[in-house]
Amino acid sequence: MTFDQINFVLSMMATVAFAVTGVLAVSERRVDFFSAVVLGVITAIGGGTIRDLILDVPVFWAADLSYVRFAVLASVITFVAQSFFSKPQILKLFLHVDALGIALFGVGGAFKALELGFGWPLGPLMLGIITAIGGGLLRDVLAGRKTLLMSDEVYTLPVFAGCLVMLITIRLFPDASSEGVLVGTLLALVLRSAAIHRSWRLPDWFLTKSK
Amino acid sequence: MTFDQINFVLSMMATVAFAVTGVLAVSERRVDFFSAVVLGVITAIGGGTIRDLILDVPVFWAADLSYVRFAVLASVITFVAQSFFSKPQILKLFLHVDALGIALFGVGGAFKALELGFGWPLGPLMLGIITAIGGGLLRDVLAGRKTLLMSDEVYTLPVFAGCLVMLITIRLFPDASSEGVLVGTLLALVLRSAAIHRSWRLPDWFLTKSK
Amino acid sequence: MTFDQINFVLSMMATVAFAVTGVLAVSERRVDFFSAVVLGVITAIGGGTIRDLILDVPVFWAADLSYVRFAVLASVITFVAQSFFSKPQILKLFLHVDALGIALFGVGGAFKALELGFGWPLGPLMLGIITAIGGGLLRDVLAGRKTLLMSDEVYTLPVFAGCLVMLITIRLFPDASSEGVLVGTLLALVLRSAAIHRSWRLPDWFLTKSK
Repeated sequence: MTFDQINFVLSMMATVAFAVTGVLAVSERRVDFFSAVVLGVITAIGGGTIRDLILDVPVFWAADLSYVRFAVLASVITFVAQSFFSKPQILKLFLHVDALGIALFGVGGAFKALELGFGWPLGPLMLGIITAIGGGLLRDVLAGRKTLLMSDEVYTLPVFAGCLVMLITIRLFPDASSEGVLVGTLLALVLRSAAIHRSWRLPDWFLTKSK
Repeated sequence: MTFDQINFVLSMMATVAFAVTGVLAVSERRVDFFSAVVLGVITAIGGGTIRDLILDVPVFWAADLSYVRFAVLASVITFVAQSFFSKPQILKLFLHVDALGIALFGVGGAFKALELGFGWPLGPLMLGIITAIGGGLLRDVLAGRKTLLMSDEVYTLPVFAGCLVMLITIRLFPDASSEGVLVGTLLALVLRSAAIHRSWRLPDWFLTKSK
Repeated sequence: MTFDQINFVLSMMATVAFAVTGVLAVSERRVDFFSAVVLGVITAIGGGTIRDLILDVPVFWAADLSYVRFAVLASVITFVAQSFFSKPQILKLFLHVDALGIALFGVGGAFKALELGFGWPLGPLMLGIITAIGGGLLRDVLAGRKTLLMSDEVYTLPVFAGCLVMLITIRLFPDASSEGVLVGTLLALVLRSAAIHRSWRLPDWFLTKSK
């Protein structure tokens, strides 16, 4: 497989994972099929859409409908097989694919902003984080849940770290774009996966309010 | 009256209905006049605004301020005559005009996306639904209510069905754009109105969680 | 100092004030550093970002990263020195700087819309209000709080009055743009500051629901 093909497969996996979390967010309510699918799709493509609006480029899913297709498909399947997807071990698996998603989309979003000349380093950093968590924020707000920004899950830090390392790598080695993206994505993925696996929480002095 | 004139009158009626629901959403709170009007206007033009941002075309109400004018006027009148608009039979009347609104704006939004070449059929379908329910979602989120995606009202299905029939009709008969839009709009309107009139709920296997 | 320099200093003060309110909004929750900073930055630049998306111009903070820099800095400092910023007299001080912010950004946003030819007077009025309160609305929604549109604080009226006076002044004296902006901003600032200082509430007939 070429680099582009690998990237495509991983992106679709991440899109699927995001859509699954969108539908599962309402699995405990009485929500109808169409609303659940709409929510799944918004969760999957929302972050990248906000990024593209801010960058003033065509939204990424207009040029390649695969994202929407996979998001719809994943939402429909999740709806039909809710009891399967709600199993603890399956949920945990999807949490890790979701981790892949925020790593891939976050660092990818920051890289897109970097290439379009959004000033180093705060522009790409902001847009990377928005790409990674925007869809999840829309999901939480529309589902009436506490947003993921309000949880004590270690969620924003891995994206931040991955984007920062990517930006620094490319700053130091301007010819190593792919390597920079790869290193950043891996770092974000490892940090987020470790946080899930070990139920990491940030130390108290990293939280607004101590226990 | 020409087709355009009829379309204009119906669009303004729908805009008014959306604005009315926006102000009524806060009629049970202590909200001031200016906030209520802002909420009414956001409800009325929010969905089409999100659509136009995603399509990257000028927002529809910049070219023709009639939408904002009617939204402001309707919001002011609703604020002043709250007790009138809160009567059950008036509320029900406006629910039906709101049904006209989601039919007209939903199918119209999908058609706009189709004409701009957003890939068939998922692009126009998504944008049709966003146009129809976007303003209501903004209203619910800003008013701190359960969003309409979370209710068991049959709301998304009529828009979906109307947009789909419009898209299929125009696919089969490429010269019959107006007829396709008309048929889709009527279908969405009839389905939504019937759902209101008969208090339709989707069957349990169409819901994420059974009773 | 030139007019531009004064404007820059005031804008940065307002950006800081907005960011501070964003971080303080979550100071009573267990929210981590990165989420708090992201929320502070979104609060600071959110309103202007929505305005620029609707106007279809590049977002203001892409051209001049000072806004993001000051927002990040203010958020970090607020996070570190929460107990200081939560003191009643400091909070009150920042409420007044926040008043400067909504005056400056509101009337400035309306003026930007006016210059870009958004139809007089409703286009600039709407965009002025969105610029002023958009960031605060995003903050409240993401933090899961009652949005400021739902409170009985006198918040929207000062922005509305300031924008209206600016628009009328420039309509009557087309050569007096700066003066119009200045008068409008001062009016909005005075009204909002007075509302804070004297705990003004709108009279009952200006509210949707009486006590």
